[in-house]
Amino acid sequence: MTASDQYRDLTPAAARALFRTGMSPVTTSGWCQGHAQANLLAVPRDLAFEALLFAQRNPAACPVLSVTDPGDPHPVELAEDADLRTDLPAYRVYENGELTAEVDDVTGYWRDDLVAFLIGCSFTFETALLAAGVPVRHVDQGRNVPMYITDRPCRRAGRLAGPLVVSMRPIPEALVERTVEVSAEFPTMHGPPVHIGDPAALGIADLRHPDFGDSVDLQPGDIPVYWACGVTPQAVVMASKPPFAITHAPGRMFIADRPG
Amino acid sequence: MTASDQYRDLTPAAARALFRTGMSPVTTSGWCQGHAQANLLAVPRDLAFEALLFAQRNPAACPVLSVTDPGDPHPVELAEDADLRTDLPAYRVYENGELTAEVDDVTGYWRDDLVAFLIGCSFTFETALLAAGVPVRHVDQGRNVPMYITDRPCRRAGRLAGPLVVSMRPIPEALVERTVEVSAEFPTMHGPPVHIGDPAALGIADLRHPDFGDSVDLQPGDIPVYWACGVTPQAVVMASKPPFAITHAPGRMFIADRPG
Repeated sequence: MTASDQYRDLTPAAARALFRTGMSPVTTSGWCQGHAQANLLAVPRDLAFEALLFAQRNPAACPVLSVTDPGDPHPVELAEDADLRTDLPAYRVYENGELTAEVDDVTGYWRDDLVAFLIGCSFTFETALLAAGVPVRHVDQGRNVPMYITDRPCRRAGRLAGPLVVSMRPIPEALVERTVEVSAEFPTMHGPPVHIGDPAALGIADLRHPDFGDSVDLQPGDIPVYWACGVTPQAVVMASKPPFAITHAPGRMFIADRPG
Repeated sequence: MTASDQYRDLTPAAARALFRTGMSPVTTSGWCQGHAQANLLAVPRDLAFEALLFAQRNPAACPVLSVTDPGDPHPVELAEDADLRTDLPAYRVYENGELTAEVDDVTGYWRDDLVAFLIGCSFTFETALLAAGVPVRHVDQGRNVPMYITDRPCRRAGRLAGPLVVSMRPIPEALVERTVEVSAEFPTMHGPPVHIGDPAALGIADLRHPDFGDSVDLQPGDIPVYWACGVTPQAVVMASKPPFAITHAPGRMFIADRPG
């Protein structure tokens, strides 16, 4: 039984309750099917304009679903009763661009001046891919999706600059076109792929060594397909070294009440 | 001969050159057909996060096409050689929410900390309306589009709050459905109407007295159709009273090189 069998029909509120009490699965891919999943970036108010401008200038990587007011950990647009400090499976804390903690609760790190950005996640359209007959290999293999730092620069916004991060899914060649069509219907979840095929075209040296998440096995006839990824802000934090930021742990997302 | 006959085939660069040398038509509606037109809001860096967040939270009224870096008057994403200080037909300067100047050049008002937001304008889809056989009454009547401050509050962003402003076009009843479809194809130019019919439903007391622009005559069988309007930030400035803001004069837009 894979994660998707066990957790795919959970309500988002039930999943968040599990995460709040300390459960921390390797990924939320396949969970709460049909609901929106979101990346988290929380930065001090001082950096909030540049973070929002970065998203505006890089909409494929950073489609903004919601922005909280400074200090407010409740993303009420996405879920009535959620708390961003406790309701994700795992978080990363960055100081001056360095990963200084990976924890399952950031209550002790939260600050009154933090502005949280919730950014659409491509896990959201996996339900539609499955419905269209497209297999999702990393879920079948019980792994997190593989993510790669590319050699494509994002557009700078003030102090924030860095490379595009992509997620990769192996897709049977005959289903690539359908995969493009299905994902294109989810513009706030990264939309259509940014690249199909040769990883070298994105500056990816070896698909077996992702920068985030797990390596996933291609099946015979699979083509690697790449989507802009909401982990891009983490690569930007690593490159731009702002004093402080909190993010989700890659692949372990906020699950919203709203449909995908 | 109406404005649209004389100016509809001008290049955006030629139109901007006319405005730069002091020409200031009553409206840019009908000009440079097929090109994007944009509203302007420029605020000090201190207010930039809230302005961008206001746009993110009110996307129908404020679809952001481009944001300049602080102090930079060149919206290079929208036009290679343009200067926001001179290239619009007319500007409004607001201090503490009061309109203190309407001028055709803001070079003397520009500040090193101003961040400019270019916001899509519904004039952009008028070319497509005409192509679909939908008349544009205000252009036929040689007038500016009428705009109204409604009783619908926008979603607040920090210090910025205020009512939705709408533009209104009289549309022959048989063409209303087609008008909705055509404008819906332009999501970054306000998209489909926010209301059709009774002005009282928006808190508009009398269509003959718009808050901005000109009154336009309905023809027999016309239905008033309303779109969210990029003058909304001006109503927000009037309501929220930030120390300083520069905007376009309603109906007298920035014309971009990019197609609509």
